[in-house]
Amino acid sequence: MEPPPHNQSNSHSHLEGSEEQEFLGIGQYDDFHTIDWQRDIARDRMRHRRIIKKKSDSICDWIRSGHDAWSGWLCVFLVAVIAGAVAGMIDIGTSWMSDLRFGICPEAFWFNKEQCCWSSNETFYDGDNCSSWYTWPEMFNHSSEGAGAYIISYIVYVLWSLLFASLAASLVMMFAPYACGSGIPEIKTILSGFIIRGYLGKWTLLIKALGMILAVSAGLSLGKEGPLVHVACCIGNILSYLFPKYGKNEAKKREILSASAAVGVSVAFGAPIGGVLFSLEEASYYFPLKTLWRSFFAALVAAFVLRSINPFGNEHSVLFYVEYSKPWIFIELVPFILLGVIGGLIGVLFTKFNIKWCRYRKTSILGHYPRLEVLLVTLVTAFVAYPNRYTRMNTSNLIYLLFSQCGAANNDELCDYQRNFTNVNTAIEIAAAGPGVLKAVWLLSLALIFKVVVTVFTFGIKVPCGLFIPSLAMGSIVGRLVGIAMEQLAYHNQDWAVFAGECSTGENCITPGLYAMVGAAAALGGVTRMTISLVVIMFELTGGVRYIVPLMAAVMTSKWIGDAFGKDGIYDAHIILNGYPFLDSKEEFSHTTLAHDVMRPGKNESFYVMTQDSMTLDDVQQLLRETDHNGFPVVVSRQSQYLVGFVARRDLAIAISQAKKTTEGIVGESIVLFCASVPSPWMGPPPLRLRKILDLAPITITDQTPMETVIDMFRKLGLRQTLVTHNGRLLGIITKKDVLRHIKALESEDPDSVLFN
Amino acid sequence: MEPPPHNQSNSHSHLEGSEEQEFLGIGQYDDFHTIDWQRDIARDRMRHRRIIKKKSDSICDWIRSGHDAWSGWLCVFLVAVIAGAVAGMIDIGTSWMSDLRFGICPEAFWFNKEQCCWSSNETFYDGDNCSSWYTWPEMFNHSSEGAGAYIISYIVYVLWSLLFASLAASLVMMFAPYACGSGIPEIKTILSGFIIRGYLGKWTLLIKALGMILAVSAGLSLGKEGPLVHVACCIGNILSYLFPKYGKNEAKKREILSASAAVGVSVAFGAPIGGVLFSLEEASYYFPLKTLWRSFFAALVAAFVLRSINPFGNEHSVLFYVEYSKPWIFIELVPFILLGVIGGLIGVLFTKFNIKWCRYRKTSILGHYPRLEVLLVTLVTAFVAYPNRYTRMNTSNLIYLLFSQCGAANNDELCDYQRNFTNVNTAIEIAAAGPGVLKAVWLLSLALIFKVVVTVFTFGIKVPCGLFIPSLAMGSIVGRLVGIAMEQLAYHNQDWAVFAGECSTGENCITPGLYAMVGAAAALGGVTRMTISLVVIMFELTGGVRYIVPLMAAVMTSKWIGDAFGKDGIYDAHIILNGYPFLDSKEEFSHTTLAHDVMRPGKNESFYVMTQDSMTLDDVQQLLRETDHNGFPVVVSRQSQYLVGFVARRDLAIAISQAKKTTEGIVGESIVLFCASVPSPWMGPPPLRLRKILDLAPITITDQTPMETVIDMFRKLGLRQTLVTHNGRLLGIITKKDVLRHIKALESEDPDSVLFN
Repeated sequence: MEPPPHNQSNSHSHLEGSEEQEFLGIGQYDDFHTIDWQRDIARDRMRHRRIIKKKSDSICDWIRSGHDAWSGWLCVFLVAVIAGAVAGMIDIGTSWMSDLRFGICPEAFWFNKEQCCWSSNETFYDGDNCSSWYTWPEMFNHSSEGAGAYIISYIVYVLWSLLFASLAASLVMMFAPYACGSGIPEIKTILSGFIIRGYLGKWTLLIKALGMILAVSAGLSLGKEGPLVHVACCIGNILSYLFPKYGKNEAKKREILSASAAVGVSVAFGAPIGGVLFSLEEASYYFPLKTLWRSFFAALVAAFVLRSINPFGNEHSVLFYVEYSKPWIFIELVPFILLGVIGGLIGVLFTKFNIKWCRYRKTSILGHYPRLEVLLVTLVTAFVAYPNRYTRMNTSNLIYLLFSQCGAANNDELCDYQRNFTNVNTAIEIAAAGPGVLKAVWLLSLALIFKVVVTVFTFGIKVPCGLFIPSLAMGSIVGRLVGIAMEQLAYHNQDWAVFAGECSTGENCITPGLYAMVGAAAALGGVTRMTISLVVIMFELTGGVRYIVPLMAAVMTSKWIGDAFGKDGIYDAHIILNGYPFLDSKEEFSHTTLAHDVMRPGKNESFYVMTQDSMTLDDVQQLLRETDHNGFPVVVSRQSQYLVGFVARRDLAIAISQAKKTTEGIVGESIVLFCASVPSPWMGPPPLRLRKILDLAPITITDQTPMETVIDMFRKLGLRQTLVTHNGRLLGIITKKDVLRHIKALESEDPDSVLFN
Repeated sequence: MEPPPHNQSNSHSHLEGSEEQEFLGIGQYDDFHTIDWQRDIARDRMRHRRIIKKKSDSICDWIRSGHDAWSGWLCVFLVAVIAGAVAGMIDIGTSWMSDLRFGICPEAFWFNKEQCCWSSNETFYDGDNCSSWYTWPEMFNHSSEGAGAYIISYIVYVLWSLLFASLAASLVMMFAPYACGSGIPEIKTILSGFIIRGYLGKWTLLIKALGMILAVSAGLSLGKEGPLVHVACCIGNILSYLFPKYGKNEAKKREILSASAAVGVSVAFGAPIGGVLFSLEEASYYFPLKTLWRSFFAALVAAFVLRSINPFGNEHSVLFYVEYSKPWIFIELVPFILLGVIGGLIGVLFTKFNIKWCRYRKTSILGHYPRLEVLLVTLVTAFVAYPNRYTRMNTSNLIYLLFSQCGAANNDELCDYQRNFTNVNTAIEIAAAGPGVLKAVWLLSLALIFKVVVTVFTFGIKVPCGLFIPSLAMGSIVGRLVGIAMEQLAYHNQDWAVFAGECSTGENCITPGLYAMVGAAAALGGVTRMTISLVVIMFELTGGVRYIVPLMAAVMTSKWIGDAFGKDGIYDAHIILNGYPFLDSKEEFSHTTLAHDVMRPGKNESFYVMTQDSMTLDDVQQLLRETDHNGFPVVVSRQSQYLVGFVARRDLAIAISQAKKTTEGIVGESIVLFCASVPSPWMGPPPLRLRKILDLAPITITDQTPMETVIDMFRKLGLRQTLVTHNGRLLGIITKKDVLRHIKALESEDPDSVLFN
C-alpha cells in the first residue's frame, strides 16, 4: 500500500491549476447545468487562502484582504438598500396607478388620492372623498352621482385595467419572458444549485418591477410580494458581479441570493425576521450560519430603508399594522382550528385546480395566445370586480380593512353595530350586528367565491403575479365571516358557560379582525405550506406575542390538512410541473433501494471510463465525440477497474486544446497520462500529462449503500455525481439526474419529466 | 465487474439483523462515546418502514402507526407543558425565598412580599413597603428604622444567603455533580452527538431545579436562564424514554433535545421565537426542518403554559416587558455602536479572566474545597452587595428597573428629573437630572464594578449558575449610564444640529431605558457571541419592531469586536477547557492538509484489518483482545487490501458470543466468513458467518481528499469514522477523534486535551 510519491504538491498544483486557468472558464457552468458545491467552495477556500497568505506582503494586499473579508457584508448591504428603494418606488407607483383607475388629481396628477386630499387644505378628510380629487365622471363635467356617472366610471375602470394589463403582458413578452409568474419556484431551484441564465438578469429585474406595478394596478387578483422576492434576487445577482468572490463562484453567489430572498420578503411585508425565516424554511438550500447573520442584517437594513421611504404612510413600517384591544379566550381555539382546516382545504383545492389549468395551458392551443389570455382574464376580473366594493378596492386595502377591529373611527358597513361610541377611548363592547354587517357578509361571500375562482385562472398568466396577497385575501374573508358569526353567537348567548367568563362583562370577548388574520395565515399556509416564517410574519405585522398561539394553531392545522389531502404546496407543484431538477431537502425518501439499483450503466449499457496511462489522444477525443457525459472516471486499467480519479469533460477539452498549442510534438498517438510520474524509459511520442486537471478526491460510495444515504449525501454535500465501487472496483456512476429520475420512477411519475442537461 | 450475487437481500438481512438484535444492545453506545448519526437514522427509517408496511394489517397496527407519526409532536408537547410548569414553580420559589432574606409575611409565610402586600387590604401599595409585610427587625420587635435595625437586617440577609448557598452546594455535591454550572456547553456537546450518561437524568433535573432556586435566592451573581435550558433538556431526555422511537435511538433523541433547548429559552425569557433561534444558532447541531417546526410548537406551548401560571405578574408573559413612548433618532446609532464596542470588550475580558480562574481552580488546591469556595463567594457577594441598593435588589428587578423609562409612576432615584407630571398621560419631556440621578449614577458605577468582578469568580463554582442575567445586568448598567449622559447632553445642547430636529420640541428625544436594553444585548452578545437569537429575544421582550435596528447594530458590533479580540464565546471556551469532543460547525477549517496526513496508521504504526474469508475465530478474538478500536475494516485479502466493509467491535463481540451459544461445532479454528457465499467444497470445522453484522456501505474517501472536505462530511453526515483508500486499496481510517486532534494540533494546542473514548 504505497502512498503516491508527492501527493501533497500534486493536489495543490491540481487546485492551483484550476485557479490559474479560471479565465479559461474552468469552474464555470453552462446554462441548465447543476453546480458542484464542494468544488466551488474548495475553489473559494483556495482563493481565500492565497489572499490571507499575501495579506502581510504589502499595504495594498492588506487592504485587499480587508475588502475580501467585508465584501460579503457590503454586498448584502447594497442589496438591501437598493431593494428597499425599489420596493418603495413600486409601492408608490402602484398606489398612484391604482387610484388612476378611479380618478385624478388635477392640481398634481402625480399624486395618488390620499396625497391629493392631504395636500388640499381641507381640515377634514374622511378617507372616502375630497373636493380636490376628481373622479372621472367629474372630470368629464358630470356630477359624480347618478347612473350615468356610475356607468362612466365603470367603463373607465375597465379600460384602464385592460390598458395596464396589456402593457404588462407586452413588456414581459417582448423583453423578459422570465419576468412572468411569481418566480419563487425558479428561485428555489436556482438556490438548490441549478443554473438558469438570465433568470436573475437586469432585464428581468426592470420588466418585473414595471410589470408588477402595471399588473397590480390592473386590479388583477395577484400580489406583488412573491415577485418582490424575485426582484430582490435579481438585485442580489447583479450586485454579486461587483464582487468576483461571489460573482465568479456559483456556490458563493447562492449565499448572496439566500440573503436577497430574505430581503425580498422583508420589504414585501416589512417583516425582517419573517423574511429570514422564509429564506431559511422555504427558499434556501445551502444556508450556513454566516448567511443567516447576513440575511438578518440585510433584511433589517432593507426594512429600515423602506420605512424611511415610508410608502405605507404609517410609522409602523409593516403592511397591515393592527392592534387589538382584547385578548383571545381559550374557547376561541376551536374556531381558530376550524379556520386552519378551511385554510388547508382552500390551499389544496386551489393548488389542484391551478395546476390542472396550467397543464392544460401548456398542452392546449391556449398557450399560443398568452396576451389574449391576459386580456380576457383582466376583462372578466375588472367587469365582475367593480360592482362589489370589496373586490373593487385594492386587495391589500381589503385585507387591512378585514384585519382591523371596529373602533369609533371605522365607519365601514362592516362595523355597523348597535354600539355608541360617546368617545374614542371607551372600550369596544360586544353588540348586535346591524343591517350593514349583514350586507357586508353577503358581499364578502360573493367576493370570496370570485377571488377563489379568478385567482385559479390568474396565477400563471404571462404577467408578474404573486400569490401571497390573494391567498391572504381569501383567508381573511373566511376568517372575518367566521369571526362575525362567533361574535354574534357570543352576543346572543352571553350566558353560555364558555362565554360567561369573558363576554358577560360585555368586553374582552371576540374580535372578528383577529379571526380575519388567523384565517389569512391559515389560507396562505395551506397554499404555500409555510409554517414558522408565516407565523412570524403575521406576528411582526401585529407586533404582539399575544396572538402567536392562535396563529400557530391555525397554521399547523392547515399544514397538516394540506399535507394530508394534497401532496405539495403550490411552489413545489409548479417546480414539478415545469420539471425543474429540484432535490427537495424536506421530503423523506422512504424506499429501500440501493445505489446498485440506481447507478449507471444499468444492464447492457456500456460504461465510459478512461485509463490512467494507456489511452492515446485519439481515443480520448473519440470518447469526447461519442459521449455527452459531463465527466469520466479514470481507472488504473480496464481489467482492474480500480478508481484513480475523476476528470470533468469541460476541463479535459480545454486542457487538450491548450496542450496542443503549447506542448511540442503532441500527436494523435501520444499517450494521455493521468498518473503522477512518467514510466521510464519512455518510447513513442511525448505523453500528454493531465494529472493537473484530474480530481483525485471524487466522492465514492459502495454499491450496497442505501439510496436514502446517497440522497442525503447529494443534499448535504451538494454533489453533482458520485462514483459507485464494489470491493475497490469501479462499478458505475450516479448523477443528480439519475437520483431525480429514480425518485420520480418510484413515485410512478414520468422520469423524463426532469428537465436537465 | 460482477455485482455481488444477491446484494439486496443481503443488505436487508444485514439491516433487519441489527434490528432484531437491538435488544442485545446493538446500536447502543457506551458512556463518553460519540454516536453514528447515519447509522441511527438508517435504523429509525427501517423501523418506520416496518410500521408503515404493517399499517394496513390490523386496526391495532394502524393505531400504532398513527401513534408513531404523532409521538414526536406528543413528546415535545409534554416536554413543553412540564417545562413550563417547572419554570413557573422555580420563578415562584425564587421570588419567595429572595424576599425571605428581607422579611416575612406573618399572616401567610408562603407569600412573597408582593403577594403579601396585595393580600393585605390596603388600598395604596407603593411597591416599597406595607404594614402586613414584616422586615426581620420588625419581627424581632424593633422598629424598622435606625442603625440597629439596619445592622440586624444586614446580618440576617448575609446569614440567609450563606444558608441557601451552602444548601445548594451540598445538594449538588451529594446527589448530582452534573447539576452545577450553566450546562449549556455540555448540552452543545451532547447535541453534537456525544454521550454523557446521567447528565440529563432525573437526579440532575431535580437537584438543578432546587439548586437554582437556592443559588438565585442566595443573591449570588448568577441567573437561572442557562440552567433552565439544562432543566428543559433533562425533561426532554426523561420523556423521550416514553417513546422508544426516541429513547432507544440517540440520533432521534437529539431532535427532542433540540426542541427542549428551545423550550428552555422560551420559558426563561417568555420568548418563543428567540428560543427556537437560540436552539438553531447556538445549541443545535443536527437541525432538520421537522425539528424546527416542533421546536417552535413546543416553545409556544411552553410560553403559553408559563403565561397561564403567570409568575411575572404581568399579562405580557415576558421577563422584562417595556414599552417606550419615543422612537429613536438616527444620531443615536453612534452611542448604540459605542455600546456594542463596550459590550464586546466586556465579553472578551470576562471570558478571559473567567477561563483563567477556572483553569486555576482545576489545577490548584482550591478545586478540592468547592463547598468552601461557594461559601466564600457568597459571603463576599452578600457582604458587599447589601449596602448598595442596586446590588441588593434581585438582579432581574435591577435590569427591569434600568430598562424602564421614567414615567409619573416610577419614583426611583433614577427618575429624579426636574419634570412635573401633572397627569400620567402627559408626554415625558426631556429634563435636567436632579441630585437623585447623580447619586444613582454613582451607585450604578460601583454596582457595575462589583458585578463584573464577582461574576468572574462566581461562574464555575459548584452550584447551578447561568450567565445571561449577570451579563444583561452589566450591559444594562453601562447602557443606562451612557443613556443618561446622552440625555443630559441633548438636554443641555438642544440647539445642536444633530438634536435640533427631535429634541427641540422637548419630546421624542432620548430614552435612557432603551440604552440600557441595547447595552444589555451588547454585553450578552459579547459574552455568548449570539446574534440573531439575542436580537429576537430582546425584540420579543419589548414586542416592537421599532428597536430592532439599534439592537442589531449593537449586537453585531459586539460580536465583531468580540471575535476580533477573543477567539471563542464563553460556552465554546468552556467546551475547550473541559476538552469535550465538539466539532464546531461554525468555524472554518482553513488549512491545506489532506486526508493522507491525518489518517491512521501513521508512519510505522500497524493497521488492524480483518480479511473476509481467511481469519479464524482465534485470530479475531486475539485482535479484539489486543486492540481497543471501536471497529475494524474488512478487506478481501491482506495482500490486495481491497475494502469489503466495516464491522463494529461491539457487534462483533455480541455476534461471536451468540454464535458460540447457538451454532454447533464453532471452535477456535473455525473460519470467520464475511463474504456472501460459502466457498464449496468446504473442509474443516463449520465456518462462522458474520456478513449479517458487516456494514457493506462504509463511507470512504481517497487519501487525496482535502481535510476541509473531510471535516465537512463529518459535520454534515455526522460520521463516526471514514475509511481512506487509494486506487481502491484501503490505506487507513480517520475517526472523529483524529479530526479533532488534528485541528488542535494545527492550532498548536495540546491534541491530547480532547477527552474521548
